[in-house]
Amino acid sequence: MIVDVKSPVPSDIKIAQAARLRPIREVAAEIGLTEDDLDLYGKYKAKVHLDVLEKLKDRPDAKYIDVTAITPTPLGEGKTVTTIGVSQGLAYLGKKVFTCIRQPSQGPTFGIKGGAAGGGYSQIVPMEDFNLHLTGDIHAVGAAHNLLAAAIDNRLAKEAMWSTDYLAKALCPNDEYTPSMRKRLKKLGIESERPSDLSDEDKERMFRLNIDPYSIQWRRVVDVSDAALRNIIIGLGDKNDGPTRQVGYDITVASEIMAALALCSSLADLRERMGRIIIGTSNSGAMRSKWPVEPITAEDLNVAGAMTVLLKEAIMPNLMQTLMGSPAFVHCGPFANIAQGNSSIIADKIALKIMGPDGYVVTESGFGADCGMEKFMNIKCRVSGLIPNCVIIVATVRALKMHGGGPKVVAGKPLSKAYTEENLELLEKGLPNLLQHIENALKFGVPVVVAINRFTTDTDAEIELIRRRAQETGAEDAVVSEVWAKGGEGGAALAEAVVKACEKPNSFKFLYPDDMTIKEKVETVAREIYRADGVDYTPDAEAKIKLFTDMGLSHLPLCMAKTHLSFTHDPAIKGTPRGWTLPITDVRASVGAGFIFPLCGTMRTMPGLPSRPVFMDIDVDLETGKVLGLS
Amino acid sequence: MIVDVKSPVPSDIKIAQAARLRPIREVAAEIGLTEDDLDLYGKYKAKVHLDVLEKLKDRPDAKYIDVTAITPTPLGEGKTVTTIGVSQGLAYLGKKVFTCIRQPSQGPTFGIKGGAAGGGYSQIVPMEDFNLHLTGDIHAVGAAHNLLAAAIDNRLAKEAMWSTDYLAKALCPNDEYTPSMRKRLKKLGIESERPSDLSDEDKERMFRLNIDPYSIQWRRVVDVSDAALRNIIIGLGDKNDGPTRQVGYDITVASEIMAALALCSSLADLRERMGRIIIGTSNSGAMRSKWPVEPITAEDLNVAGAMTVLLKEAIMPNLMQTLMGSPAFVHCGPFANIAQGNSSIIADKIALKIMGPDGYVVTESGFGADCGMEKFMNIKCRVSGLIPNCVIIVATVRALKMHGGGPKVVAGKPLSKAYTEENLELLEKGLPNLLQHIENALKFGVPVVVAINRFTTDTDAEIELIRRRAQETGAEDAVVSEVWAKGGEGGAALAEAVVKACEKPNSFKFLYPDDMTIKEKVETVAREIYRADGVDYTPDAEAKIKLFTDMGLSHLPLCMAKTHLSFTHDPAIKGTPRGWTLPITDVRASVGAGFIFPLCGTMRTMPGLPSRPVFMDIDVDLETGKVLGLS
Repeated sequence: MIVDVKSPVPSDIKIAQAARLRPIREVAAEIGLTEDDLDLYGKYKAKVHLDVLEKLKDRPDAKYIDVTAITPTPLGEGKTVTTIGVSQGLAYLGKKVFTCIRQPSQGPTFGIKGGAAGGGYSQIVPMEDFNLHLTGDIHAVGAAHNLLAAAIDNRLAKEAMWSTDYLAKALCPNDEYTPSMRKRLKKLGIESERPSDLSDEDKERMFRLNIDPYSIQWRRVVDVSDAALRNIIIGLGDKNDGPTRQVGYDITVASEIMAALALCSSLADLRERMGRIIIGTSNSGAMRSKWPVEPITAEDLNVAGAMTVLLKEAIMPNLMQTLMGSPAFVHCGPFANIAQGNSSIIADKIALKIMGPDGYVVTESGFGADCGMEKFMNIKCRVSGLIPNCVIIVATVRALKMHGGGPKVVAGKPLSKAYTEENLELLEKGLPNLLQHIENALKFGVPVVVAINRFTTDTDAEIELIRRRAQETGAEDAVVSEVWAKGGEGGAALAEAVVKACEKPNSFKFLYPDDMTIKEKVETVAREIYRADGVDYTPDAEAKIKLFTDMGLSHLPLCMAKTHLSFTHDPAIKGTPRGWTLPITDVRASVGAGFIFPLCGTMRTMPGLPSRPVFMDIDVDLETGKVLGLS
Repeated sequence: MIVDVKSPVPSDIKIAQAARLRPIREVAAEIGLTEDDLDLYGKYKAKVHLDVLEKLKDRPDAKYIDVTAITPTPLGEGKTVTTIGVSQGLAYLGKKVFTCIRQPSQGPTFGIKGGAAGGGYSQIVPMEDFNLHLTGDIHAVGAAHNLLAAAIDNRLAKEAMWSTDYLAKALCPNDEYTPSMRKRLKKLGIESERPSDLSDEDKERMFRLNIDPYSIQWRRVVDVSDAALRNIIIGLGDKNDGPTRQVGYDITVASEIMAALALCSSLADLRERMGRIIIGTSNSGAMRSKWPVEPITAEDLNVAGAMTVLLKEAIMPNLMQTLMGSPAFVHCGPFANIAQGNSSIIADKIALKIMGPDGYVVTESGFGADCGMEKFMNIKCRVSGLIPNCVIIVATVRALKMHGGGPKVVAGKPLSKAYTEENLELLEKGLPNLLQHIENALKFGVPVVVAINRFTTDTDAEIELIRRRAQETGAEDAVVSEVWAKGGEGGAALAEAVVKACEKPNSFKFLYPDDMTIKEKVETVAREIYRADGVDYTPDAEAKIKLFTDMGLSHLPLCMAKTHLSFTHDPAIKGTPRGWTLPITDVRASVGAGFIFPLCGTMRTMPGLPSRPVFMDIDVDLETGKVLGLS
């Protein structure tokens, strides 16, 4: 450990600021990276160049471990703490290990939840950088996202103002196409060397995108929790201020660009994905008689290249360290409800090569296993071609008791006695939630280890009950994790179980093939993972499924947008519900990211601030320059 | 030069990408900075720690040179090119020289104007980094700005929802004040150890800010040219989505935070400035009978500490290099109309110490000398205590001919023959514009050198006419600059004149003392610099002047918000107008930045996009990873 373990455990920021950080150059050198492989960002952060992947392409991969969790309480069950902790445990055992996790959104750091760099003696450091700008990746995503948004409204305004001839001349002042314009020509099936070649009709199709304002799905983003921006009207003023329309803001990590960045394999792949982003469709009104409704992409707006330029640093993973001084990549943070909620494929791939066949890469999936892990398997692994060697499911006695019918758990309110005293009956009733998650993970053909994130009030009898039932259900082991209080040493037992599990045979498979229909995929996930009896679709959802199928998008994997607080769509329903039907209220397509996302209820994509936001405690110590109050 | 000079001059990006960049560590080492003084951001950028200032505090300052310009055409007259070019010229002469310039806004880089890293063989490199995210400073300003905006709307929403008792308990759950709350107690003159001490009336004053929504001046910002955000309505939805009100977005560099960052002297000073920011006033309606209207600050919202935390890296200047491989600071980019339009005091101060008594620091003021230079002298130098040794006024034959009555100059349209053929008569008629700027600069007691940014069509007779008249008016010299075409060598003659001017005696003085009234200051600038006969105030402006005077703000310097395209408030009026009156339409206060800004007409603070935005040409070369199309 690069920090001395004390008891009682001090605050997260005190532990983090007491750490004797290793220069990141030293961490990098130890794992075989040269200075030329790095862009340093200060002394304790570095971006790693993508060509490392090419250099190491013949080296076999390390073992690949995904950390997920049971259905959590609103307090969270310590998934990030365990992800970092099991890594520290592996390092404690003398294993080569790389941790790959998501960058948290800065917005909520100042709002409700505070930091997310782990906690106690299981953290990524420097925790201030981790929680704040880091190396600017989220800002870059925001800039690219909002550039596309501005391009949309600018195009709407200019098309409303100008004749097609004027537009054509303005866009091609030298009677020449840009490479991006040539892509649109190809898409439209128009052969033309120069704009002056075009027939009037082709000129109109080419230069008048005729975007239906009501079809536009592309919102704006900001990395601040700002509820007042959820629903807004823009474009007041005069005609140069764009059309007046109702739009809204999401938090930046909810951007499709963040999802695409986390799933891309190279800069070229990212460029393609940016071009494929569908922002809406062409107008089916005035133009219906002439041409069919057409999806309008970022490429059609000729802005995908500039967006990629804004992301050329963000594509490189950020190297940091754990409190054991072991290497960690912090890269990308797509939303776990409307997106895949998993850190980047690029980071995992580079880490797997750097660690090599006798090493370990530990990564984390957002939300519970029915959400994050399902997407890890069906989306992330499908795109990356990587196969996990082990899944760790994090459970707590507290959350299992809640699933057994314990009193409501509310952030900021004291816990009921049911949670702080031994209660085997309540625990037994709640255990099926864990067992269903174990069964679900086993359906992917991957060995499972349960990590019991132990609280001081948990009794040995409670732990033993969980262990026994987990093993009966097929888990390789269920091991207590005390990484929060003890750091690497507290994760050693869990790490040993994981090492063993990774040696087990693996029969990895996806839950559904690419060529199933969208509805078949939805129903497979609903029945197999959530254990619903069936699925109901609203007319809107039906129409969208037809539209996306007609657009040739049904081969894409699904990214189910569902609450993580229940196996169902209703966060209030705990345990392992049976005999229910999953409602699909709408279906959307993130073609740049590469998935279809069915909505199971309303998903909030812009957090609000509480009456007393965390920012009220945050300040700078003017003597030392250190950050105060981040938790 | 770190690049070979070719003729004809290639595109800016081609020159920049052909440069053999020196590792920034080497540039830093050469000027005596150790690795501990730096935070590297990749190989060619570094942030320099502020404690360098403390380490070098006993070293005398270098010579301090401000580059400004005559009233420009809409095409600009090459101020940045000359700023970098004269620095390269000084380096060419073997002098120690540091260039300090502003970071351009990323928004317009994708919109109308393209890059702003200089041009030709006079550039800061890497030009892509210069024009894009650089080290994230503008994003940090945006995050801090928008955090304050979210805090305002959240407070409005929560105060509308809760009783004062509930608010007090929510804000102080442990019956304790934060340090920031203690500042508000002090401001209100309330003595209290704990919230439970408070009388009902004091509790209401303390915890119910009672912000008048119509008084709120704090808008939101984004670094994208997005005209549709100029005027918007936020807070649609339900009561958790904040109050519905009309607001708007500015481009991020127009933020008061950017102005404050550029004017601050330390992290502690920045923290104070963030706390002082006035976002609006308390409600004069329901509460009028009880308490007077009170300015509401970021400190009152308990968010100034968190804002400062977001800016703790942005406060450090960014070290880059010129095409001579000489050091350059790129730091802050406050708007030049509603703010001071000058790069940071911190960068200048560090550069002056690093260069020492036999070195030179060249900095640039935005817009023409009546705008940027006046603010450089009256605001920046007043706050910093620094004294310039020389002012360079950049002039072009083209702009002078325009002032003489030449045809309108429009971006993107071919120039009239009047500008491309010798026309001494037209030039003679336009020369007074330059001469008035020279006279104005001399009023500050600083030697003046005129830099004639020569175009290939300018004749020797035209150059000679400018030189003679400039010297007659009191300029030390007027020298042709050919830095765009020839780099350092092309700036050598100008550099020699500047070296000579810096040896001249200096009788630096401000145009007005602190203790003049706001109106006296406005009238002094109007008469002395713009040469107006007088000033007219709207009733709004009168009321604001009274308000700010009552609030004890009249000691602040002025930051005149006026077009740079004319000495007057009307951009169409060229030359040196006489017999006119300056209208002041409104007056605002940037108390965090530390100035009062009278508005002379409407100032645009959010650019729009043209029909063919520059982003259409920008892309990534997928083979090399290089940026294409940035100009």
